[in-house]
Amino acid sequence: MTHKVLLLPGDGIGPEIAAQAARLLKACQDAGLDIEVEEALVGGAAYDAHGDPLPAETLDKAKAASAILLGAVGGPKWDKIEDLAKRPEKGLLGLRKNLGLFGNLRPAMLYPQLASASSLKPELVAGLDIMIVRELTGGIYFGHPRGIEERNGERVGFNTYVYSESEIERIGRVAFEMAQKRGKKLCSVDKANVLEVTILWREVMERLAPEYPDVELSHMYVDNAAMQLVRAPKQFDVVVTGNMFGDILSDAAAMLTGSIGMLPSASLNESGQGMYEPCHGSAPDIAGQNMANPLAMMLSVAMMLRYSLGENAMAERIEAAVGSVLDDGLRTADIASEGMQTIGTDAMGDAVLAA
Amino acid sequence: MTHKVLLLPGDGIGPEIAAQAARLLKACQDAGLDIEVEEALVGGAAYDAHGDPLPAETLDKAKAASAILLGAVGGPKWDKIEDLAKRPEKGLLGLRKNLGLFGNLRPAMLYPQLASASSLKPELVAGLDIMIVRELTGGIYFGHPRGIEERNGERVGFNTYVYSESEIERIGRVAFEMAQKRGKKLCSVDKANVLEVTILWREVMERLAPEYPDVELSHMYVDNAAMQLVRAPKQFDVVVTGNMFGDILSDAAAMLTGSIGMLPSASLNESGQGMYEPCHGSAPDIAGQNMANPLAMMLSVAMMLRYSLGENAMAERIEAAVGSVLDDGLRTADIASEGMQTIGTDAMGDAVLAA
Ligand SMILES: CC(C)[C@H](C(=O)O)[C@@H](O)C(=O)O
Ligand SMILES: CC(C)[C@H](C(=O)O)[C@@H](O)C(=O)O
Repeated sequence: MTHKVLLLPGDGIGPEIAAQAARLLKACQDAGLDIEVEEALVGGAAYDAHGDPLPAETLDKAKAASAILLGAVGGPKWDKIEDLAKRPEKGLLGLRKNLGLFGNLRPAMLYPQLASASSLKPELVAGLDIMIVRELTGGIYFGHPRGIEERNGERVGFNTYVYSESEIERIGRVAFEMAQKRGKKLCSVDKANVLEVTILWREVMERLAPEYPDVELSHMYVDNAAMQLVRAPKQFDVVVTGNMFGDILSDAAAMLTGSIGMLPSASLNESGQGMYEPCHGSAPDIAGQNMANPLAMMLSVAMMLRYSLGENAMAERIEAAVGSVLDDGLRTADIASEGMQTIGTDAMGDAVLAA
Repeated sequence: MTHKVLLLPGDGIGPEIAAQAARLLKACQDAGLDIEVEEALVGGAAYDAHGDPLPAETLDKAKAASAILLGAVGGPKWDKIEDLAKRPEKGLLGLRKNLGLFGNLRPAMLYPQLASASSLKPELVAGLDIMIVRELTGGIYFGHPRGIEERNGERVGFNTYVYSESEIERIGRVAFEMAQKRGKKLCSVDKANVLEVTILWREVMERLAPEYPDVELSHMYVDNAAMQLVRAPKQFDVVVTGNMFGDILSDAAAMLTGSIGMLPSASLNESGQGMYEPCHGSAPDIAGQNMANPLAMMLSVAMMLRYSLGENAMAERIEAAVGSVLDDGLRTADIASEGMQTIGTDAMGDAVLAA
């Protein structure tokens, strides 16, 4: 069966790193993988071309694909667009929602070769390997009512943080299963001492726990979780949380590694279809300068091969190639360090392909 | 004029550290300050005694006081209370709301003597001095509608994140004024690429900016702020944000110092009345063991003297005393390090009083 892969370069450094992913996909084809690659516009690039960050054509192609690879969206160029529905971010949110990509897997792991890049003391982060499971199609990102309106003579802004039992259960199961495959520890993050929606969240996690007797479930308030990530991140194995807390904590966790330019992520729906993207953003400040680190994007290809295409062997080859390039002392600027060779985006792509 | 101070020990280590604050207040009286100290119950302690985490008597005393000193509330003992309105946290939230304590000042600064306590590399945190200004009586903590109810055959939990222009303006002014007194940089944190309520937030901050031409205003998305705090915390001077983002970010920032047991906080209303409390929680695991660090609580007394009672000289004496105790190598267990002398709560109180 031919795997259809949709490549969405997006904005900022997106096109540069997507180009390296395209080369990698080509190499996979040459190695015998039956994949077909298409490209489409999303985000600011799509807005500029069609006045819409998620054109119908892109969405149709996405629906038809087995997997999607996304670079990054957004940038100051589009920050002035008043209408949220037209902003680049809406392209991303629209894809997540329309494809039902509720399960977001954000690994934060530290490559031993890059231990010194972390802002934390080496002993606190050596061997760090956390998996954050973030709910991605619900919560306050999508809740209604929402808007800005006049009340009692002044404007008021409002959003709704909402989860149903079934939404919580669905992401809970992804997290419990992930914990079973890993260190068997699951920490659910909420603010159940203040927010009713997270009281329900905690209750559903508790209800699921007996079905996964090999997993040790704990609960943590989000403020404490933010502290514990800074204080002793290795206490975590799998973390599960809602859309907004997940946004914040997964970025903090990724930054603990000091090398967010290395971290891929996956967003999956109920049928295993997935969108894969780097954890980092569109980095408009370095766009077009052949400076961006393409490794998170290339590792997103590996993650896609594993989770959506069932091509584990090829995924491992890519991950091993990245490891050996790091062993060889090659670094892009974001992870540069003394005694290592700093190279550009293209050269890093070359090195991985060669390895 | 006699200053009325209300001491609310609360739960967990609250009573132990409050006892040290009481001794310090006594010493202030002996040194000629005209203060009158009363005590009352709040949180779990008040629930146990009166079935209510914020008894009317406590609230009345709080309203009549010039300033309130709070230890900490909450603990696993009360986590099973189903009704959020009866939980210890509600005592704290009720005080904030009823007294209109909308302006929460949470300094995160690193004592040079404790630089090694941070999990971050010393060069990243040396000299760290951030002031987080958190809105404390609005946002999702207090928004309506809220609850858990049945919809389409299943339970749904929901909360409302809401701010009016006037609420945003009020906290914005506190933050701009704080920035004027400090490094003249203000970073407003929002999620304006997704949440309408924070689009309004950003707009109001922009509107205020021209009135404070000496302050440089910037904006940052909350996920990025969580990353930047880990990556390069010294880039921040004053940070202003809403209730929930402030909860998360101020805890992360406090933990960057590695010595959250040292950090006081203030919550002020429009007439300068304030509640002062340590940034740390009730630490039930070490309660009753004479192990807790009383310094954040004693520094809260200093903050109270400065912000609510106008007694700057006495505030400085207390801060200097804490500095000299640290210089003498005295440490509680939470900030213990090699070559330093580890002492208990009482002994630390003694040392500060002696200094
Ligand atoms: C771009 C933005 C809408 C998005 C989010 O907040 O989900 C991003 O920060 C992410 O985490 O993927
Ligand atoms: C105890 C809790 C309700 C409180 C909050 O979330 O505001 C605490 O975490 C704080 O930050 O003061």
